[in-house]
Amino acid sequence: MFESAVLRHEVAKEDYEREVAALRIALLEAQRALGAEKRFAVLILIAGVEGAGKGETVNLLNEWMDPRFIETNGFALPTDEEAAHPPLWRFWRALPPKGRVGIFFGAWHTAPIVQRVMKEIGAGDFDRSVEEILQMERMLHDEGVLLLKYWFHLSKEQQGKRLKALAKDKRTAWRVTKADWKILESYDRFFAVTEPFLRKTSTGEAPWLVVPGADERYRALFVGRHLLQALQDRLKTGRPKPPAEADVPLAPRVDKLNLLRALTLDQPLDKADYARELETLQGRLSLLSRDKKFARRSVVAVFEGNDAAGKGGAVRRVTAALDARRFRTVPVAAPTEEERAQPYLWRFWRHIPGPGFLTIFDRSWYGRVLVERVEGFCAPVDWMRAYGEINEFEAQLVENRTVLTKFWLAISSEEQLRRFKEREAIEFKRHKITEEDWRNRQKWDAYEQAVCDMVDRTSTTLAPWTLVEANNKYFARTKVLRTLVESIEHAFDR
Amino acid sequence: MFESAVLRHEVAKEDYEREVAALRIALLEAQRALGAEKRFAVLILIAGVEGAGKGETVNLLNEWMDPRFIETNGFALPTDEEAAHPPLWRFWRALPPKGRVGIFFGAWHTAPIVQRVMKEIGAGDFDRSVEEILQMERMLHDEGVLLLKYWFHLSKEQQGKRLKALAKDKRTAWRVTKADWKILESYDRFFAVTEPFLRKTSTGEAPWLVVPGADERYRALFVGRHLLQALQDRLKTGRPKPPAEADVPLAPRVDKLNLLRALTLDQPLDKADYARELETLQGRLSLLSRDKKFARRSVVAVFEGNDAAGKGGAVRRVTAALDARRFRTVPVAAPTEEERAQPYLWRFWRHIPGPGFLTIFDRSWYGRVLVERVEGFCAPVDWMRAYGEINEFEAQLVENRTVLTKFWLAISSEEQLRRFKEREAIEFKRHKITEEDWRNRQKWDAYEQAVCDMVDRTSTTLAPWTLVEANNKYFARTKVLRTLVESIEHAFDR
Repeated sequence: MFESAVLRHEVAKEDYEREVAALRIALLEAQRALGAEKRFAVLILIAGVEGAGKGETVNLLNEWMDPRFIETNGFALPTDEEAAHPPLWRFWRALPPKGRVGIFFGAWHTAPIVQRVMKEIGAGDFDRSVEEILQMERMLHDEGVLLLKYWFHLSKEQQGKRLKALAKDKRTAWRVTKADWKILESYDRFFAVTEPFLRKTSTGEAPWLVVPGADERYRALFVGRHLLQALQDRLKTGRPKPPAEADVPLAPRVDKLNLLRALTLDQPLDKADYARELETLQGRLSLLSRDKKFARRSVVAVFEGNDAAGKGGAVRRVTAALDARRFRTVPVAAPTEEERAQPYLWRFWRHIPGPGFLTIFDRSWYGRVLVERVEGFCAPVDWMRAYGEINEFEAQLVENRTVLTKFWLAISSEEQLRRFKEREAIEFKRHKITEEDWRNRQKWDAYEQAVCDMVDRTSTTLAPWTLVEANNKYFARTKVLRTLVESIEHAFDR
Repeated sequence: MFESAVLRHEVAKEDYEREVAALRIALLEAQRALGAEKRFAVLILIAGVEGAGKGETVNLLNEWMDPRFIETNGFALPTDEEAAHPPLWRFWRALPPKGRVGIFFGAWHTAPIVQRVMKEIGAGDFDRSVEEILQMERMLHDEGVLLLKYWFHLSKEQQGKRLKALAKDKRTAWRVTKADWKILESYDRFFAVTEPFLRKTSTGEAPWLVVPGADERYRALFVGRHLLQALQDRLKTGRPKPPAEADVPLAPRVDKLNLLRALTLDQPLDKADYARELETLQGRLSLLSRDKKFARRSVVAVFEGNDAAGKGGAVRRVTAALDARRFRTVPVAAPTEEERAQPYLWRFWRHIPGPGFLTIFDRSWYGRVLVERVEGFCAPVDWMRAYGEINEFEAQLVENRTVLTKFWLAISSEEQLRRFKEREAIEFKRHKITEEDWRNRQKWDAYEQAVCDMVDRTSTTLAPWTLVEANNKYFARTKVLRTLVESIEHAFDR
């Protein structure tokens, strides 16, 4: 969920200042319309890790907008009176009326997350809280409240770096307390609770927006732009949009950086080294597949990637190491008539392997949020809900002892062009290139956006994506094999 | 949830036969259209307690419709192959394609319920299953599947009676096995798991329909009519209706019997006995309110009822026993401007008492599913979701140590007329009767329907409704007081 958020996002000072000037005018205008029409309330949840700019952003929002019509509520420990009432009572009391903006700095998620991390409550109580939160947020949506949920994120490295930088400078060292280092220490435990929490509570009606917290200017523009867009959309349409359409695109683009552009697609690996590595990795995979632990596990490997990125070649290097009776490759093309008569995921469920088997999906269920989204083959409301359905589907596989690996093979636009031309020039490769490939190429940017959203929404601790730099085929194939081998070994070790 | 289902519903043989003849023709016609258009699939879940006619109904449906286009799947213990896959895999395999009817005799709910009753899984795992089921059913709805969920119900008494009747008759005694008596013994444990399960999985998209299982003919017509209506509606509109509108009315009426009509509204209690009882009960209530356990509990008493049913009088008999500093009466009328600017439940949340206090709601949050439903003040989609929101709200109160009692004061139409006229005749009572009261009276049947649905959808083990026979005010007041006193005593004992 945090893939895009931990990239090194930056905004230049002059760009920031120019943009903020315009943003403030537009926000004030939207806020004025909100107050005049009194048709709906706006509720902004500010959540996330320490040091990611939550407090700063709350102050900024109050500075940018008219603070007389914003009510900021900080929810720390409940007062005696609050503790004597049901947990949601204090949030009900603080809800903003129609025409106003309410900011909840910390909200209903805070207590259950902290209590779960501290082991004060068990998994059952935590799930019950998640259920209550889902119902509360759904109710707010149904009641017409514009609910915006911002999760400010820093990676453990970013958080550590930030503390060290503050501690080193004499002028800021006082800001770093023992508690801050303690929080850093418990980062992983927090992450283990918050990641699935965010996944479960990120619904079509009220998705979490993960705010990259490292750069002050970037995060401010990110939140400001998203808030403005959401306000303007809602003022225009009046009614809440159907679930899920509300957040296309999922997050504003503040800089040109994204997950794919952050990759170094040309990775060195020469043919001789490749040959050696390939043999070693295939040997390890072969051994693993004959290990008796394999009989109680199944393996699913998903291959997605740009056209001509080398999916087929990578798949063949995997299958070459395996006994043909133990694996199957499922090429995914347009659905058959039988498949079209069933719910979308049906055609993938039917190919899920039992224990002792490995299945390779050459393209997969991600078609819905890639080609179907970009080409408009299904409505936004359908591909938006697919993220949640896919996460749920994959969680069920992993809980059932499936080792699940997902590869996105990425090549540059230039490299793709080179390969397309090469295919056209070579007689026996000509069948591999079609009109459609050239058409898809026209939509490079739209696909890029879809891939980034896909990774952000479906890369989970249970089922992470592996982005494979694939301009060099040798490198790509070894990275795929190594990831697969290590995933299986890791599963065996547990 | 089962209030209506356990009434003594009956259908005469000749009525049944006439109706079934027409029903079969209509069902076959609908099925033919379904198969010709192939626009959606129908999935029927058959669930519920033993002996309530599940198997018989499945056979009937196959008999009534064209069995070539129905696929019935019985899900007993999973096969080895099924057990080796994720739990939902076997259901995915058996999904009906568009144009067909699939019957699942037992489905995804069976295993988690049985395992939870047998304590093979904990509360956390059970909640996780509930979550999976909710997502599965939501996905099916979003994919356009017409999902119909029938829960066949018998009360413990009805189940016991049925077994005894079978055992007594020499011709049927062989049908009663030791296992049947065991099931009867474990009835309460099953109920404790299934009741909250049904509540949580009864969503706007896919509500459970509780089928009264005791009378063979009644239950057959109940399911047949509901199925036909759902099929015809969907064939007409093509698209699934927005969540929640799909099930108005919530269940077909097969006979004239309903919860209110089943009450004996005239209950004997003369003035002298009343005076004695009143004093005793008020004394008990007064003592309870001064008990030190009361300081850690709060009490909420909800009063709803027909116009002129005597709510005010009953409320005064309660408050007379209490210290004015410890209770508050909240009369609920039309919302204020401030309240209209907030989500519906906000105005009730603000009056929730803290520990040591008792709050009486003279009319309540149930206005949404009563007057607002009947008068069309809110859309069906809004009052339908209110059932779930109210159940969730009340669960939060009860979990927070609130003693919650809910009274429906019921009088007959004739008694109401008598009281209206009396009020008009007596100078100091005239202000109590308005034009609106006479208008509401015109809609007696619609209100009656709304009350029955309300009780069926919101009477839970945590927060049961008490129906008060109120033609005799003396009886009504003592029943209210006694119920309140016993509820508080019961809470103190735990």
